[in-house]
Amino acid sequence: MHKVAIIGVGCSKFGEMWDSGFRDIVISAGVEALEDAGLEGKEIEAMFVGNMSGGRYLAQEHIAALIADYAGLAEFNIPSTRVEAADASGGLALRQAYMAVASGVHDIVIAAGAEKVTDVGNPMDIMISSIDKEWEGFVGATLPALYAIIAKLHMEKYGTKEEDLALVSVKNHKNGALNPKAQFRKEITIETALNSTYVAEPLKLFDCAPISDGAAVVILASEEVARKYTDTPVYIEACSQASDYLAIQNRKDILTMNSVVVAAKQAYKQAKIETKDIDVAEVHDSFTIAEILAYEDLGFVKKGEGAKLIREGVTELHGDLPVNTSGGLKACGHAIGATGVRQAVEIVLQLRGDAGKRQVNAEKGLALNIGGTGATAIVTIFSR
Amino acid sequence: MHKVAIIGVGCSKFGEMWDSGFRDIVISAGVEALEDAGLEGKEIEAMFVGNMSGGRYLAQEHIAALIADYAGLAEFNIPSTRVEAADASGGLALRQAYMAVASGVHDIVIAAGAEKVTDVGNPMDIMISSIDKEWEGFVGATLPALYAIIAKLHMEKYGTKEEDLALVSVKNHKNGALNPKAQFRKEITIETALNSTYVAEPLKLFDCAPISDGAAVVILASEEVARKYTDTPVYIEACSQASDYLAIQNRKDILTMNSVVVAAKQAYKQAKIETKDIDVAEVHDSFTIAEILAYEDLGFVKKGEGAKLIREGVTELHGDLPVNTSGGLKACGHAIGATGVRQAVEIVLQLRGDAGKRQVNAEKGLALNIGGTGATAIVTIFSR
Repeated sequence: MHKVAIIGVGCSKFGEMWDSGFRDIVISAGVEALEDAGLEGKEIEAMFVGNMSGGRYLAQEHIAALIADYAGLAEFNIPSTRVEAADASGGLALRQAYMAVASGVHDIVIAAGAEKVTDVGNPMDIMISSIDKEWEGFVGATLPALYAIIAKLHMEKYGTKEEDLALVSVKNHKNGALNPKAQFRKEITIETALNSTYVAEPLKLFDCAPISDGAAVVILASEEVARKYTDTPVYIEACSQASDYLAIQNRKDILTMNSVVVAAKQAYKQAKIETKDIDVAEVHDSFTIAEILAYEDLGFVKKGEGAKLIREGVTELHGDLPVNTSGGLKACGHAIGATGVRQAVEIVLQLRGDAGKRQVNAEKGLALNIGGTGATAIVTIFSR
Repeated sequence: MHKVAIIGVGCSKFGEMWDSGFRDIVISAGVEALEDAGLEGKEIEAMFVGNMSGGRYLAQEHIAALIADYAGLAEFNIPSTRVEAADASGGLALRQAYMAVASGVHDIVIAAGAEKVTDVGNPMDIMISSIDKEWEGFVGATLPALYAIIAKLHMEKYGTKEEDLALVSVKNHKNGALNPKAQFRKEITIETALNSTYVAEPLKLFDCAPISDGAAVVILASEEVARKYTDTPVYIEACSQASDYLAIQNRKDILTMNSVVVAAKQAYKQAKIETKDIDVAEVHDSFTIAEILAYEDLGFVKKGEGAKLIREGVTELHGDLPVNTSGGLKACGHAIGATGVRQAVEIVLQLRGDAGKRQVNAEKGLALNIGGTGATAIVTIFSR
């Protein structure tokens, strides 16, 4: 396997982009990435695009060919492939691009993630297609409802409190306030979080990430090629993917996402590191309880002890292990198919020292992207 | 790159499967493939699934995790990835699986394709999302309309006749009548085809493939591993993918699908063969004119001479170069995301000598899978 580097990153603003179409948003992120890498579109050999529901949000499938076309690459006839695993679609695109370079098939490959959700009446309805429609959706379960069940059991079994969940939200809003691309650039108090309305008890409005418009692009290259373009490559040391039962009812323990546990173990092994070597992480806080689970399933703490990390400030911006320095899905925004790539953008900026006011000191980073309630997980480990 | 073999194939019946759900159809094809290969599900290391519009046909995305789960593989946490490029989704799944084995990352990988289209009111509406929704769909263009424009120009420029198109349909129905999995197992006369109603002039009902429910599965393995499971491996000599402008209005010549030309050239080169070495082919006859274009863009004849092959009987079942021995999309049925994998199943059966009444004499085969009007094309070359 060849060593793979990221040589350019780009990200659109996340949020409700009423003035921009899907194509505009993707292209803005792509242009930023190309400029960052200092290369021209025609040097791109292949493209992978993460998008969850173009069919339902835009009445447009065949999204990868569309993006290659609108990026001006149609005349080069490059292979352009859409991948989908709900809101882990971006992570999948990153992984496929990584494999394409690691295997030596291509030298320069784009991984893009994009979603435009605000062009339809009730975008949340569409998110339900990420869970098991026949066994969960049909009986009225929604994403907040399923995560609420998980949160309730975590509280009962391990003593996690609504205050702990609120602290995750407060932290991520604090970080998001420092991120010019974030949807919500406003700090909140723990009272604001705790006094917000219940969406699905015990999860309140401020426990739930928004769903957003947005796009992110990273450009990957083999180590040898990367040197021609940048003095600050960020390497992908591992990128692992695993699956789990689609419906949470079939899992032995709904408090453990086996997909995350397995993908993380594989990634640590391939990268030849231990959990404690990670300096900064972006995890999939679609709900605050998901960030607590991520602490545990990634091995940062033992199962059941996730709340300790947020209570003790370990995962704060200047804590020992900063998590979601971008603001996470909660404050940066959750542009579904874009999120996995957007997480990679944040880790690259942190490892290069380009993260501005939210810069932390880090040599190794991790990103965890999850689909639905964890039927798909991708864990990526980066180093500078 | 490692040599890649297909060690098992499975295919559901194609058609209007009112009695079966999406999950049943996929699993039936998967079980057939596992039995054909003589292996157990737990030996599968990864899965790629081609599906165009689960979101709209089923209100279900996250299809690859769903299939891994329903195949009983959730406990093994294997990576399972959905890929999409409209009706080239199956071809993409085959290609990703091929790359995963060729690169040495995995030894045994499943490529599946599946679509269930009959659970919604107007499935054809959804097909429009395979073309450019903003520049084609919004102004009322449909798949038949766009292929009709192509057909009209081909007739004007090269003298192709409606009778030639009808002959493609007659041939494919004749072949489909011999295929137990085919949707339409009935021969038709040229009069039936010519007297059928116009869908989009000059294309008539019998020039248009149906859209169907169906699933197909192939199991790929590295050459070394393949030997343990089968004495009749079929090798994938090449699997190439290319893209083109999404909207036909942007192409220099709407009578040439550059994606097909480029993918074919790459595939022939990688397989170290010439066009004349191909003994049997499955091509993407979503409309009869598409089969004529395929003859040309694959290099079987020069541009403009496609109709000659069907007039002279070259592509008949017992002609010099049998095309669509399965019945093609027209008679076997077009289960959208399944089609690219279904084509591979047919070529494997032909090369193994397992094609029953439609058996031809062949050592090398080719499959061409197209998305929409050709914005994506995958060309695969097989040998026994």
